[in-house]
Amino acid sequence: MQDKNMLMIPGPTPVPESVLLAMAKHPIGHRSGDFSKIIAELTANLKWLHQTTNDLLMLTVSGTGAMEAAIINFLSPGDRILVGNNGKFGERWSLVGKAFGLQVEEITAEWGKPLDPEVFRAKLAADTAKTIKAVIITHSETSTGVLNDLETINTHVKNHGESLIIVDAVTSLGAVNVPIDQWGLDVVASGSQKGYMIPPGLGLISVSQKAWKAYENAKIPKFYLDLKAYKKATDKDSSPFTPPVNLMYGLQVSLQMMKKEGLESIFARHARLTQATRAAMKALGLPLFAPDEAASPAITAVMPTGVDAEAIRSTMKKQFDIALAGGQDHLKGKIFRIGHLGFVGERDILSAIAALESTLQTLGYEGATPGAGIAAAASILAKVG
Amino acid sequence: MQDKNMLMIPGPTPVPESVLLAMAKHPIGHRSGDFSKIIAELTANLKWLHQTTNDLLMLTVSGTGAMEAAIINFLSPGDRILVGNNGKFGERWSLVGKAFGLQVEEITAEWGKPLDPEVFRAKLAADTAKTIKAVIITHSETSTGVLNDLETINTHVKNHGESLIIVDAVTSLGAVNVPIDQWGLDVVASGSQKGYMIPPGLGLISVSQKAWKAYENAKIPKFYLDLKAYKKATDKDSSPFTPPVNLMYGLQVSLQMMKKEGLESIFARHARLTQATRAAMKALGLPLFAPDEAASPAITAVMPTGVDAEAIRSTMKKQFDIALAGGQDHLKGKIFRIGHLGFVGERDILSAIAALESTLQTLGYEGATPGAGIAAAASILAKVG
Repeated sequence: MQDKNMLMIPGPTPVPESVLLAMAKHPIGHRSGDFSKIIAELTANLKWLHQTTNDLLMLTVSGTGAMEAAIINFLSPGDRILVGNNGKFGERWSLVGKAFGLQVEEITAEWGKPLDPEVFRAKLAADTAKTIKAVIITHSETSTGVLNDLETINTHVKNHGESLIIVDAVTSLGAVNVPIDQWGLDVVASGSQKGYMIPPGLGLISVSQKAWKAYENAKIPKFYLDLKAYKKATDKDSSPFTPPVNLMYGLQVSLQMMKKEGLESIFARHARLTQATRAAMKALGLPLFAPDEAASPAITAVMPTGVDAEAIRSTMKKQFDIALAGGQDHLKGKIFRIGHLGFVGERDILSAIAALESTLQTLGYEGATPGAGIAAAASILAKVG
Repeated sequence: MQDKNMLMIPGPTPVPESVLLAMAKHPIGHRSGDFSKIIAELTANLKWLHQTTNDLLMLTVSGTGAMEAAIINFLSPGDRILVGNNGKFGERWSLVGKAFGLQVEEITAEWGKPLDPEVFRAKLAADTAKTIKAVIITHSETSTGVLNDLETINTHVKNHGESLIIVDAVTSLGAVNVPIDQWGLDVVASGSQKGYMIPPGLGLISVSQKAWKAYENAKIPKFYLDLKAYKKATDKDSSPFTPPVNLMYGLQVSLQMMKKEGLESIFARHARLTQATRAAMKALGLPLFAPDEAASPAITAVMPTGVDAEAIRSTMKKQFDIALAGGQDHLKGKIFRIGHLGFVGERDILSAIAALESTLQTLGYEGATPGAGIAAAASILAKVG
């Protein structure tokens, strides 16, 4: 049906009506006093969401642009960096590092498995000459639904002392606890079309004092992504280049909504949605791609047996107007991914699971008792309150 | 009054209601078949607007990001380039070139005066060793209201043979004739919040075959702004990174509106608005900053005498809710700039001139006969059909 599209992908995520309507306002001049007030409010509320007093910068880029800025502003060609690579996005940061002449050492894990913090500990402990300049981690690996153990890996980085910790929090920020100041995360990048509940087009970066010190010696050339220009402007409630005015109208509203819900409630909601989705998949006999102990709060990847992943996606789209994500690269056609990030509630998850049950019947799947998925999800949701 | 803001600045420019409402639609997945159709439509219509069969690429960046991409994709550190600098933006491309290690030679003109094509001719003719790799021109210099003579300068570049011509068309594209194929412009960059009639957040670039050949030897490191990735994706009606979905909904509608109006009509409208504005300023005894023969179709800069530029801006804003732009850098407080770019009609120009006349009376200005500005503008508008 027209206009019935339901987004259950890891981004763009659904956008609240009040945010959409805010974005439909006439733009105002980005150099006006009225817009300065908006930048000030957004910066303050983003710091609240990021749990940080670090600088919080807004860039007109998508997530990859934000991560590139998070890397190139603090390093020089030839610098040795460790990149965690257990999926499409970890792989991307490795490519970015290489594109800018960094000496990239990958710490890999099979797609679908979390990175092993012990490998980071050993590498960092062995580096007595302190040649490792940065460790780059994808917190929630969107391509596989794996949440890497950032907290433990970061402990090892802190013990090293010299290395920066640079985090892709694109699908973890606003979904699971990422206490930037408490953990001492140096650079954290994310994108608007995820936990922030607005459409794509705005990149967010937090920068620590330690990272700014590294900036002074960093020699990768940059201009549009030069974060010092953003800091100088943000300190004056301004922007160095033209910002995406209407997206920022939307962000004003979405951050107000998030403050009302509260961080703890937001994280609890995402945990509940994740558990309900995973319980349903298990009850339906559909193998989960990531283990329970490393489950992303943003997305659940499923590798079905006895039924075709693409047939599931296709029927879900055609019959129920539900968009699920497919697999990327070698996982294409082998997995489907259910997004439960941002403006997603319990009704949405039940709808998706119910439609999936119906789809499985349509496709003649015989691996589960009909209704078992909803029953399992409901038992998770029943535990609340 | 609340919600009465009228934008008469060079960007963001006013946005049609139908575009705003299109932007308020729920986003869909940018990897879906439905979105591919949108990319295909946008690419075709943008090529129409750009009068080109060259590749036409959309990036999630503001204008500066688009121009950076236009520079760094086709050059290597140490390359000799000529940059026309007669305003804030010409100056910026010089800074970008230097940031990336290019050997920048500026050809300057006083702010408010156009670049002299003869200086380009002489420099290019003297370069018998063909060491000049690119000439970079700001077509419409937004900071001063000067339209540089791109056509003539480009003729000299063509006679040189080796050099690329790279154009900042941010406030000329969609306002004045920029026939990319006819003139053979290699790289042309622009931004969405100008002639395109949508809010900021999308950068546009056209790339010629000659530029793609230069790309093969270009050695400035890049990833997010690597245009080959955009070309590969665009050839498949896709995008390499997450695009600003909702802005692109808006662009769909605005391009449809522009096609309906027609290129000739759009250019004629901008010319009329420019002439009416300039006639009014002259009649009011307010000196124009740029000469008639180099008048930007996007913006008219005025350097008033006998009345304070900032007082005019302030009264226009407070009493009439009209936003005018001020001067930048050393022109701060000395000029005001009236934008007449994009979704601006004849009524808007008359409104702004009438409000300016009222403002001049409020400020006790005695340099003109009351009503002379409107009379002069009307005489221009009366000449039409």
